[in-house]
Amino acid sequence: MANEGAEIKEETEHMLEKNGIKEQGSVMSTGDTKEMRVVLLTGFGGLNKLRVTKKAMPEPQEGEVKIRVKACGLNFLDLMVRQGNIDNPPKTPLVPGFECAGIVEALGDNTKGFEIEDRVMAFVNYSAWAEVVCTPVNYVYKIPDDMTFPEAAAFSMNFVAAYMMLFEVANLREGMSVLVHSAGGGVGQAVAQLCSTVPNVTVFGTASPFKHEAIKESVTHLFDRNLDYVQEVKKISPEGVDIVLDCLCGDNTGKGLGLLKPLGTYILYGSSNMVTGETKSFFSFAKSWWQVEKVNPIKLYEENKVMAGFSLLNLLFKQGRGSVVKTVVHKLLSLYEQKKIKPLVDSLWALEEVKEAMQRIHDRGNIGKLILDVEKSPTPLMANDSTETSEAGEEEEEQEGDSDNKERTPFIP
Amino acid sequence: MANEGAEIKEETEHMLEKNGIKEQGSVMSTGDTKEMRVVLLTGFGGLNKLRVTKKAMPEPQEGEVKIRVKACGLNFLDLMVRQGNIDNPPKTPLVPGFECAGIVEALGDNTKGFEIEDRVMAFVNYSAWAEVVCTPVNYVYKIPDDMTFPEAAAFSMNFVAAYMMLFEVANLREGMSVLVHSAGGGVGQAVAQLCSTVPNVTVFGTASPFKHEAIKESVTHLFDRNLDYVQEVKKISPEGVDIVLDCLCGDNTGKGLGLLKPLGTYILYGSSNMVTGETKSFFSFAKSWWQVEKVNPIKLYEENKVMAGFSLLNLLFKQGRGSVVKTVVHKLLSLYEQKKIKPLVDSLWALEEVKEAMQRIHDRGNIGKLILDVEKSPTPLMANDSTETSEAGEEEEEQEGDSDNKERTPFIP
Repeated sequence: MANEGAEIKEETEHMLEKNGIKEQGSVMSTGDTKEMRVVLLTGFGGLNKLRVTKKAMPEPQEGEVKIRVKACGLNFLDLMVRQGNIDNPPKTPLVPGFECAGIVEALGDNTKGFEIEDRVMAFVNYSAWAEVVCTPVNYVYKIPDDMTFPEAAAFSMNFVAAYMMLFEVANLREGMSVLVHSAGGGVGQAVAQLCSTVPNVTVFGTASPFKHEAIKESVTHLFDRNLDYVQEVKKISPEGVDIVLDCLCGDNTGKGLGLLKPLGTYILYGSSNMVTGETKSFFSFAKSWWQVEKVNPIKLYEENKVMAGFSLLNLLFKQGRGSVVKTVVHKLLSLYEQKKIKPLVDSLWALEEVKEAMQRIHDRGNIGKLILDVEKSPTPLMANDSTETSEAGEEEEEQEGDSDNKERTPFIP
Repeated sequence: MANEGAEIKEETEHMLEKNGIKEQGSVMSTGDTKEMRVVLLTGFGGLNKLRVTKKAMPEPQEGEVKIRVKACGLNFLDLMVRQGNIDNPPKTPLVPGFECAGIVEALGDNTKGFEIEDRVMAFVNYSAWAEVVCTPVNYVYKIPDDMTFPEAAAFSMNFVAAYMMLFEVANLREGMSVLVHSAGGGVGQAVAQLCSTVPNVTVFGTASPFKHEAIKESVTHLFDRNLDYVQEVKKISPEGVDIVLDCLCGDNTGKGLGLLKPLGTYILYGSSNMVTGETKSFFSFAKSWWQVEKVNPIKLYEENKVMAGFSLLNLLFKQGRGSVVKTVVHKLLSLYEQKKIKPLVDSLWALEEVKEAMQRIHDRGNIGKLILDVEKSPTPLMANDSTETSEAGEEEEEQEGDSDNKERTPFIP
């Protein structure tokens, strides 16, 4: 990746007007350095740590593709990054974001397989929330002509994670049953769609009641996320389920393992329960480590059960499994072209609206994926502040400046 | 299963001469109760707890098949049963043994799919080491004409366990690598053969050096079981392996998980390290539970790893998964008929030689499976005792009677 961190400008100097019009277009540190808009995380903490600012535009290194970004995916994981609630968090300031879609603008040396103007989606090891990203060619995939950029940005992380968990870690086959939390979220909807590609699969999902009407067609049995899902599943299937996908962590590991049928697989792929409010995480990653129940392998032996963990980011960026992921992306694009799966986009947000978007995913208001639309202008501000109220009632460490607390109505496509 | 426990005769009354000739053929408790020879475990402990005696012959209940047994499998698990080193051990006296092959002699009511004289192999929930067993029809499978009874008795547990671990729990595919301990044992050889049915699979195996010459063709890389296998594997494959099959337990869970590549699967399927000598287990099942390292699911998440346990007996007899196992048996029999797999029989032993056979598996002297051949006469006794020396140097609680400590030469087919 191009070295960007050192070139970040003093944010106040380049802070953009929230309406996105009065850009300080020509301020450059050196004569020929081009600039781009980015979302910058200035330190771990609340929404007030996010700013839209300008940064020197990266140029592709050897083996990298430079992409003019059109749309970026926003994931629950980005909240955890903002709060510093991840293992070995990188240094701030940083540009968040792990996935984007756009158009190839340039290629580094020895970068084969793409042409300028190719429509692509890509994984990025941070720095996706920018007008331009550079990322290794192995993380870039051409997208079908009929796939929109928001769809593509909604596709990569959620569908790859869902596919690999269901078919590579577990072994989803005809007649099996799957429990997925946050069934209305990006991964949840990807899981539901992929399950529908296998005959006779039963999907149990939890979601906030207001989403049930919208997603009921995609899930066999839908429960209120505030109910005891263990009891709800057992009412319908006393034997339990074959696959449990857990993005909550904490005591849900024990519950999930308890719900498995013999030969069933529990997969931990997130720890959203560790996010309790909007400020810097009270539960650091280290604390969440101690909160979760450890499991004795002899228990798994006695019960014929499988316990797994899945982190797509670690797989890609720490463990160098880009080629495995590429194979999966190609299978998924084939399913897309057969119209068997289709990313569900919840809403599009301008870069300047990233706080509202984050608030929406934090409050679990989304059905499907939240997308940052790089070319979108912010929606005009509404009357007064009503965002920023965290679930746990925590307060922001600092007050936001001027218009930051005003509400915008999101664009729902 | 027919109720047999209550009808066990006082063992001394019917104790057979070890040479198997002077049977007290006609001693019966009631006029028309038929009798059969069985191996009886009189209490948990050393080899001296095993006796050959007579018992009332069971008759098939509804849904059961009565089998005239020709050959029985002897597994490491039978040692653990003898020592009482299993979860919820049943009451003694009991007849050990979980698998056999023979000829259908009678059918209970509503027992379909078999005819008298069918050649079959079967799982039995204890009581396999007898001249006759009755077991539910779901645990009985017809065997091919060219499969011998010893082969069939060597087939069921080891190949089903190996197959389910490789293909149902893990997801063995082309190009993967597998580590298996006791590569010369029954499961080890089944694993090696099944791996050879998938292109380009690398098998790492550990075994005692004296077995290497005999099994080197079946395993890609063979290590002395006394060496540090973690180091040996890493010398050849610094990245580790895709699948670790662990029958040792204890600190091998941590070692096994550490050896996994991302997306790799560790499976615990036994705890032979808990067997330290020939007497009643010093390590009770409860103690082994505490000895093994518990695993944090967040560690699996960080490392993209899978930890599983597999117990075929629990799957069959506690968890009612006979139909899943039946499907697997049919796939395996198809592989057998295609001559892609073939059970490896180490040696055949008369019922009266069960102690010597158990000593051999305890001392890891076997290459392939040990079989109790019900119709075999014991090999004439040799000069003096040299068995019964346990690895850990523990002594028998009691001295064996008369000829029990004399050595026999096994029949190697």
